[in-house]
Amino acid sequence: MLEKALGYAHENQDRFLTELKEVLTIPSISTDPDHNPDMQRVAEWLASQLRSFGMNNVQIMPTGGHPVVYGEWMGAGKSAPTVMIYGHYDVQPPDPLELWTTPPFEPSVRGDNLYARGAADMKGPVLASLKAVEAVMKSGKMPVNIKWLIEGEEEIGSDHLGDFIKNHKELLACDFCLNPDAGIPNADQPSISTGLRGLAYFELRVYGPAKDLHSGLFGGTVHNPAQALIELIAGMHDKNGKVMLPGFYDKVRRISKKEHQNFLRSPLNKKSVLEMTGAPTLWGEPQFLPAERIGGRPTLEVNGLLSGFTGSGSKTVLPAWAMAKISCRLVPDQTPEETIRQMKKYLKEKAPKDIKWELQYLHGAGPALVSEENVGVKAMSKAMESVWGKPLLFQREGGSIGIVVQLQKYLKVDSVLTGFALDDSDVHSPNEKLHLPTFYRGIDALIHFFYNLK
Amino acid sequence: MLEKALGYAHENQDRFLTELKEVLTIPSISTDPDHNPDMQRVAEWLASQLRSFGMNNVQIMPTGGHPVVYGEWMGAGKSAPTVMIYGHYDVQPPDPLELWTTPPFEPSVRGDNLYARGAADMKGPVLASLKAVEAVMKSGKMPVNIKWLIEGEEEIGSDHLGDFIKNHKELLACDFCLNPDAGIPNADQPSISTGLRGLAYFELRVYGPAKDLHSGLFGGTVHNPAQALIELIAGMHDKNGKVMLPGFYDKVRRISKKEHQNFLRSPLNKKSVLEMTGAPTLWGEPQFLPAERIGGRPTLEVNGLLSGFTGSGSKTVLPAWAMAKISCRLVPDQTPEETIRQMKKYLKEKAPKDIKWELQYLHGAGPALVSEENVGVKAMSKAMESVWGKPLLFQREGGSIGIVVQLQKYLKVDSVLTGFALDDSDVHSPNEKLHLPTFYRGIDALIHFFYNLK
Repeated sequence: MLEKALGYAHENQDRFLTELKEVLTIPSISTDPDHNPDMQRVAEWLASQLRSFGMNNVQIMPTGGHPVVYGEWMGAGKSAPTVMIYGHYDVQPPDPLELWTTPPFEPSVRGDNLYARGAADMKGPVLASLKAVEAVMKSGKMPVNIKWLIEGEEEIGSDHLGDFIKNHKELLACDFCLNPDAGIPNADQPSISTGLRGLAYFELRVYGPAKDLHSGLFGGTVHNPAQALIELIAGMHDKNGKVMLPGFYDKVRRISKKEHQNFLRSPLNKKSVLEMTGAPTLWGEPQFLPAERIGGRPTLEVNGLLSGFTGSGSKTVLPAWAMAKISCRLVPDQTPEETIRQMKKYLKEKAPKDIKWELQYLHGAGPALVSEENVGVKAMSKAMESVWGKPLLFQREGGSIGIVVQLQKYLKVDSVLTGFALDDSDVHSPNEKLHLPTFYRGIDALIHFFYNLK
Repeated sequence: MLEKALGYAHENQDRFLTELKEVLTIPSISTDPDHNPDMQRVAEWLASQLRSFGMNNVQIMPTGGHPVVYGEWMGAGKSAPTVMIYGHYDVQPPDPLELWTTPPFEPSVRGDNLYARGAADMKGPVLASLKAVEAVMKSGKMPVNIKWLIEGEEEIGSDHLGDFIKNHKELLACDFCLNPDAGIPNADQPSISTGLRGLAYFELRVYGPAKDLHSGLFGGTVHNPAQALIELIAGMHDKNGKVMLPGFYDKVRRISKKEHQNFLRSPLNKKSVLEMTGAPTLWGEPQFLPAERIGGRPTLEVNGLLSGFTGSGSKTVLPAWAMAKISCRLVPDQTPEETIRQMKKYLKEKAPKDIKWELQYLHGAGPALVSEENVGVKAMSKAMESVWGKPLLFQREGGSIGIVVQLQKYLKVDSVLTGFALDDSDVHSPNEKLHLPTFYRGIDALIHFFYNLK
């Protein structure tokens, strides 16, 4: 049956690619309300896919935001494990548009890669899961029970997913979750993530004069809010790059010797990070490996800045306000709630009296760790090693996946974190791409995975 | 003849207002190439005005940028003084549009004020000059020779005006320049500016990774260019607000006792500046009066900031670049050339090796001082005291007017700096307004001025 399912997957590769391209043409940008109809379209497309290979109870279920696509197949019986397959159908905004070689929502194959917004993050991995289940279902009996949870708000913080899970504990009950949103380092290195960073994302606004002023007529008498914002943010790091929010490192867990050994094996080293980022040199805490700075250490980043006149040419304005998007990546045992308190405390202590400030917490998630002994982790590890023919790497990742924390919290289950996006897939960047050979290997590995769970 | 000319001006006030509204409907935004046809329309409108009351040799003269409107009347003879009347027909961009009560290019009278972009800066003052000359010409013989120089690039730094003056020294030869672009503090306080600050305007760009990155996947290993830009700009002031560019204060002239006395009389005090700006409290060098900080001390201001994701919601991007618009206001004897060197030196010394930076000097002008004994200053001072019925104030202003420096340099003439915009006219801001009673008083004062020069 394994061979039959793999054969089915291989014979249908062209159709799988066509279907993937189809769903990638829909600009399901969750952060932009103008795209709400596109969110609905993708949800319906997915529901129809699930029905096409025999899933039951397929529903587009409302949440406080974008809907969740649910489906299940419970035919393996009570003694078989139940695997929840997680995915998200929303994508990041594609801007800056001018840097895309081909338009973000017109999927284009060049060489081994398929270029489109969402190709790697994560419509490609969602399709791989759908197609692996389809291949097993069409080739005999699926050895495990399956539940699908495909959300539409991952890129905006999965704000409504916690409530959704809490309100549907019975429907969603499972033994563990398969989450292919974590990616692997490169096409030759299968991996499973046993750690994720958390996130706390803020918008900080500083207000000065009541309106934009002429910088000649008033400059020198009024604290420029852009200047004040800059002073506040500059003080959030010391000169060695240490984050200065009060108590920021208090709960940060030390990296263990075993973890350090895994980090040493990581393909994320000075050379590869320089290649992937194109940065002139590396930066960050010198006492930690690049992989440790990404997977095991917290950060504070400026994600956006806006104030005053930003067009071409010059305008001598003293702006009325300035804005920054700032986010912290968190590691065990930090929490977003504590980070919010630390940020507020910092601002209360440091903000000068001659401006007003306003902090908005936009979203966040806690960090997560998963055991290498989890039954799903073991089945997936074996599956990937079979397909790739080489040892798997256990990684602690730099990204944040809110669902992992919510599933631990509400359903008491861990997640098998892997995926088929690569570190150079340019997720969240222009020219996002999916490496097609890895996509097809991913389908094979998932087919192995289901049979390994028998 | 004075009375006749004043009578003519009073009888025609309604028509003057209609004509002013007409020219204010043309969005002559010099910084935006899309508005080039509007620049041409205003120039033609002004040329037709000049011809309508007997100016000769009226021409729209090309420059490297937007054209200059020229006209002359030399009928007063060689023994009479020749007054050049300066103006500019370009305006600042009107954004943010949503803060305007009525659209910026649909002039609207509310109470004593006419609201429109350019109403105060400076189509109103240009109209006042045109109408004062018209009134004198239509009421007898103009006692002085007149030359008009109305440019279209003041709001973008008058970059081509220096060359234009250098190339037309004979045509533009005059005894002094009347420049009504400086404004007066409020409707009850006639004033002449005897000092202006200079300007050096920069765009600073910082480049880090080759593309926008996912802040989770790479955050902690790459110097965030928004963070690097912030660190560079934060270091441009010390904690007391002192500008830290190397040598910035070396050439700053001390404020004399007599100047300090004038500054003490200035209506720019703590209370009025707080009222006009709406700032929570004042800021700046505590050892100087607010009027001194504006008129007698140099500054460094952030005029604009842009980096990464600035839309609503959140995007976890580690941006590839960050940009700031930064300008310095200069006082005697600073020069833009030295400021450029100081800025470059600062950046070379302070910029970290893990980013690249690029500094663009966009434009600038030197600071200027004018003697209270200048013949034009004396004639205008007497004229304003007659119309307002109170003593005039000599002021050193915070703004920058490039033409004043260029006329000193190329034609060796000083400028009579006054005007009819008020400190609360919101020039460069939304809801820019012209105080109409001051506009009409201005026409009267200019009529007096011409007869005072006989």
